[in-house]
Amino acid sequence: MKLVLLSGGSGKRLWPLSNDSRSKQFLKVLRNRRTHEPESMVQRVWSQLVQLGLAGSAYIATCKTQIEIIRSQLGNAVPLIIEPERRDTFPAIALACAYLHSVVRAHPDEVVCVLPVDPAVEEKYFAELMQLERIVLDSGADVALMGVEPTYPSEKYGYIVPDAPAEASLPYSYAGVLRFEEKPKEARAAELIRGNALWNCGVFAFRLGFLLETLQRKGLPVRYEDAVASYAGFPKTSFDYEVLEKGGRFVVHPYKGSWKDLGTWGTLTEEMDARLIGKGTIDGRSANTHVINELDIPVTVIDIPNAIVAASPDGILVADKAASSRVKELMKGDDHRPMYEERRWGWFRVLDYSRHADGSEVLTNKTTILAGKYFSYQLHRKRREVWTIVSGNGRIALGNRLFRVGPGDIWHIPPGTGHSIKAETDLDMIEVQAGELADDDIVRLYTDWGEIERYCDSPDSEE
Amino acid sequence: MKLVLLSGGSGKRLWPLSNDSRSKQFLKVLRNRRTHEPESMVQRVWSQLVQLGLAGSAYIATCKTQIEIIRSQLGNAVPLIIEPERRDTFPAIALACAYLHSVVRAHPDEVVCVLPVDPAVEEKYFAELMQLERIVLDSGADVALMGVEPTYPSEKYGYIVPDAPAEASLPYSYAGVLRFEEKPKEARAAELIRGNALWNCGVFAFRLGFLLETLQRKGLPVRYEDAVASYAGFPKTSFDYEVLEKGGRFVVHPYKGSWKDLGTWGTLTEEMDARLIGKGTIDGRSANTHVINELDIPVTVIDIPNAIVAASPDGILVADKAASSRVKELMKGDDHRPMYEERRWGWFRVLDYSRHADGSEVLTNKTTILAGKYFSYQLHRKRREVWTIVSGNGRIALGNRLFRVGPGDIWHIPPGTGHSIKAETDLDMIEVQAGELADDDIVRLYTDWGEIERYCDSPDSEE
Repeated sequence: MKLVLLSGGSGKRLWPLSNDSRSKQFLKVLRNRRTHEPESMVQRVWSQLVQLGLAGSAYIATCKTQIEIIRSQLGNAVPLIIEPERRDTFPAIALACAYLHSVVRAHPDEVVCVLPVDPAVEEKYFAELMQLERIVLDSGADVALMGVEPTYPSEKYGYIVPDAPAEASLPYSYAGVLRFEEKPKEARAAELIRGNALWNCGVFAFRLGFLLETLQRKGLPVRYEDAVASYAGFPKTSFDYEVLEKGGRFVVHPYKGSWKDLGTWGTLTEEMDARLIGKGTIDGRSANTHVINELDIPVTVIDIPNAIVAASPDGILVADKAASSRVKELMKGDDHRPMYEERRWGWFRVLDYSRHADGSEVLTNKTTILAGKYFSYQLHRKRREVWTIVSGNGRIALGNRLFRVGPGDIWHIPPGTGHSIKAETDLDMIEVQAGELADDDIVRLYTDWGEIERYCDSPDSEE
Repeated sequence: MKLVLLSGGSGKRLWPLSNDSRSKQFLKVLRNRRTHEPESMVQRVWSQLVQLGLAGSAYIATCKTQIEIIRSQLGNAVPLIIEPERRDTFPAIALACAYLHSVVRAHPDEVVCVLPVDPAVEEKYFAELMQLERIVLDSGADVALMGVEPTYPSEKYGYIVPDAPAEASLPYSYAGVLRFEEKPKEARAAELIRGNALWNCGVFAFRLGFLLETLQRKGLPVRYEDAVASYAGFPKTSFDYEVLEKGGRFVVHPYKGSWKDLGTWGTLTEEMDARLIGKGTIDGRSANTHVINELDIPVTVIDIPNAIVAASPDGILVADKAASSRVKELMKGDDHRPMYEERRWGWFRVLDYSRHADGSEVLTNKTTILAGKYFSYQLHRKRREVWTIVSGNGRIALGNRLFRVGPGDIWHIPPGTGHSIKAETDLDMIEVQAGELADDDIVRLYTDWGEIERYCDSPDSEE
């Protein structure tokens, strides 16, 4: 069986920590159970797959904007299937299947299991999910879904209505699917639960051949190169809409373990070990209040219970937990550039940005480059940069020379001059960019440090 | 009559907006009634004095650390009496009287009226305060106080207990003072109010000669130069403790107008016209919540009523208004450097600060210089600076040359090199300082722009 993890979303529901470059699955609000280091949902899920020996058959389906942050959090070895543009779950799954078919050369009878990249679950979830393979093959169904046994009549989820209680006696039990119901009112949800309905947690499996046939029937390509080339022509719809709601032979396997959708501040903070992440103080009368502070500025909360205070360079949210999901509507019009971004080599946050009437801009960043990482050797045509090393040591390539750099060093990079920096220890610097700051004003000359060293004259003449 | 406005305090009760360099009276949380521009309490009180024609006989008694911010908010013409160090109200008033005596050469029979610099009051307050002059002279009392008619049995204030209801028939009525009572419990306060007791609002007047005699009796100097020289020897006590509680002939004049002590977030926000100052959003369910945001980062409040959210580079406070006075105790241990400071030439805020293990430091500021203002021509021995102009135009003196500067320009100032900058329009810049950043590593060579221009070679050769 192949696992395809869907890493989508960008949403503002967890504003200001989630932004266009950092979706909720990348927020380091959890804590690694062994090392106690902060970890994100995607890091937790991937490490669960590694521990269970499932990572070898897993792929992450994502889009271009998430490549850097996935590489930063999971390393370079994780296999990615990259959407040319963000569309919806049906095209993303179709592209992944085309990849498995024509690049991985998986057999049409291979079972593909699709799952979201961000559930908070116990190990049992993965064990049950593996049963979907036999269920697909034994039942002969088009799609086998996993349904979570509801713990309360939620109005937020979709429900899967089975045709009968699942056979509890089998090692892998399943029932046929009568129909799906999206986000019912509470009374209706309670009624559905009495009829053994299950929450749709976005986990489902099918024979690769089933999806390939579906694509062919719709006149869509099944070869990966073709799918990439014509991706803009795929319908921008969900798998639920494009496949499940069109009817077919579907079965559902009930999952009786713990499962949480960490999509709101309320559910997310329930999973946090610590009530305070970052600098701050929560007084004794602010019961059940959580603070996640990514700024250097301390937060003090006095006598505000049941609240979430989330602070990042993008914004500061102060919300009652029960109402915090309203942030999505409130921030709808907010489309300013992300002020914090993770990259393959580390991360940066914007300290200050100004645009002048004549179009000239000045951007001040604090940039962290992790030990051993480096920028590609690049140049800009229309901007000057000044780098001031705050801490850490490394080497800078400027023009065609190499220099050692350390705390307090200031480097001026004129337009048109090739430059790169490699951190030997974790390295912080202040970067001021001035000029015209177009994203595409970057010429990457070398991407490998060995090449950069060879290009630079006489590395022995370092200063 | 001479007016002495006491500008003291630094307190943390309005943290994070008040800090060691910016006391509550300098916070621009009010709005000018005519121009609708933001204004501080000290600006409001001073403009009230100007309007009533009283500014010509008014002096502000303050300490060194407030000179820059007072000059920035009130201009250079306001007469200041500067304490060499912060002590308490008795030494501050003694120094002011020594100044009036030996510098201004006021007659010992001149009446001096002392008042705090930060009350929120109507014009009537000043009219009544002017009556203290005749009351002092007619009553022959040592000190005539103004007492505010209480509106509720507050536990926060001191009470002045009169020997009889003040004579309401006189144009200026007063009564003798029986005694003072500090911060009584609510029941006791109610009892005091039934006995016509008044709130002590820190306004009192006396013949200059009275205070000079008091000083002589205590063996303290009455000449200004001597008082400055021996200021460290003055008792570090309040005027209440050193004079009023020692007994004497005191009278009190009741003030029946509006008066508010803006010392807490609760009282301060009552005086604000707008519920939001700075970038942000307060949703409809956050009734009676105020946001004062001095950061560039937007604040969003959802369903948190009756709260204050105050954000500055020093910190972010999220507090229930009723409990917000507890911030003082909570922040007691917090003694980090102020991250926002006002200067004669404008202001700056710290964007980032790091200290490295070897003692080297890197500080990144965003600095605003107001049109027409400039830095003194100075040099540093142990730090390098890089200035990047964000917006505005001006002239920079570097070494002994003058240059025009504008948006996007980057200037590197090595240690030992004299430098200054003058803004022609309001000018923002990013300043990165690196090296050893001692406050006293500054050699001021010229403080007048004319001198700086003359010093710099060939101003005609500007680039």
